[in-house]
Amino acid sequence: MKPEYVLPDEIEKRSFEIISDELGDIKILDEIRPILMRVIHTTADFDYLENLKFSENAVKTALDAIKKGAVFVTDTNMAKSGINKPALKKLGCTAECFMADDDVADIAKQKCITRATASVDKASQIDTPVIYAVGNAPTALIRLYEHLQSGTFSPALIIGVPVGFVNVVQSKEMIMSCDTEYIVASGRKGGSNVAAAICNALLYMAGGR
Amino acid sequence: MKPEYVLPDEIEKRSFEIISDELGDIKILDEIRPILMRVIHTTADFDYLENLKFSENAVKTALDAIKKGAVFVTDTNMAKSGINKPALKKLGCTAECFMADDDVADIAKQKCITRATASVDKASQIDTPVIYAVGNAPTALIRLYEHLQSGTFSPALIIGVPVGFVNVVQSKEMIMSCDTEYIVASGRKGGSNVAAAICNALLYMAGGR
Repeated sequence: MKPEYVLPDEIEKRSFEIISDELGDIKILDEIRPILMRVIHTTADFDYLENLKFSENAVKTALDAIKKGAVFVTDTNMAKSGINKPALKKLGCTAECFMADDDVADIAKQKCITRATASVDKASQIDTPVIYAVGNAPTALIRLYEHLQSGTFSPALIIGVPVGFVNVVQSKEMIMSCDTEYIVASGRKGGSNVAAAICNALLYMAGGR
Repeated sequence: MKPEYVLPDEIEKRSFEIISDELGDIKILDEIRPILMRVIHTTADFDYLENLKFSENAVKTALDAIKKGAVFVTDTNMAKSGINKPALKKLGCTAECFMADDDVADIAKQKCITRATASVDKASQIDTPVIYAVGNAPTALIRLYEHLQSGTFSPALIIGVPVGFVNVVQSKEMIMSCDTEYIVASGRKGGSNVAAAICNALLYMAGGR
């Protein structure tokens, strides 16, 4: 099998055509389709067709937040680095990750909580709309759940796609049980790459490129 | 299902116990096991048990290169950001990604090649051992193949785990056909997260933590 010659600028387009072909006639809501396609593009994993769950107004609410200059907060620097910076800039949005901040490390150590938990508390002080993207730490989702319950922090959208084995499934179920807007990959799968892919899909839908 | 209480420092250990339980009695070579486990830890995807292919001396050669202060070159800043910096420092290694460099962008545009291809050419000038980790761009693997054929660049190890639909499968097969040391995720799956996980597994095996 020899490589197919595809012009550099056409590679992503060709990938999306292949994904579209393989999805065939499966019915997918128009507003969800670009997000699902981008996650499959990022993972080559069609399991997300079943796994990816959207609250009713997730996409609409996220696009509204982006119009208001949303801050994308991620739970890894890896997810942050995967978000398209020109798209953020074009739309007047920003991305933050507090995981490596000294104050977060100090509080985490002092309270014996994860840095991901302490980062959620720090993000709760932001006064512009927040899109909180969790690709790694279930403890971040659990803290977001606690804030939602107590009314102390309510992001415009929670992207809940941590990956792994300890409390991942549970933390996602907790978020989906809340009266909040979410995009969640149910089950064990997800990751920083998936988190970034969802953020980028939303940015592109909002006109970021 | 309620969350299990696990101390922050114990989460990774507990995850590895769960993965180990689920792998059960499957026979895995000792030197490969930590790499496979970390990739599954990163992806929650047991397909890698079948997909991940190692050339005969891949691990040994990589550990030797790390002892000599290897440069980990990645094809995305996301993969670079996922590599454990304290581990790199402890072992006297470094990580580089040339994708956002102006000279790479200029050459790519001028020659109508991808920036990933131009990055490989730039990396070919490095005179310490290189571990080249490709989590995204098949064109990087194709250029590495060309350099291997012409004898102009021979990394100590090629980590070939791009993800996707256009030339991904082919480019991995090209690398596996070469007389080179490789760790490759055959098929469509992979990603920057997988590339970083393999780099980190090697760093930890070398005593990086």
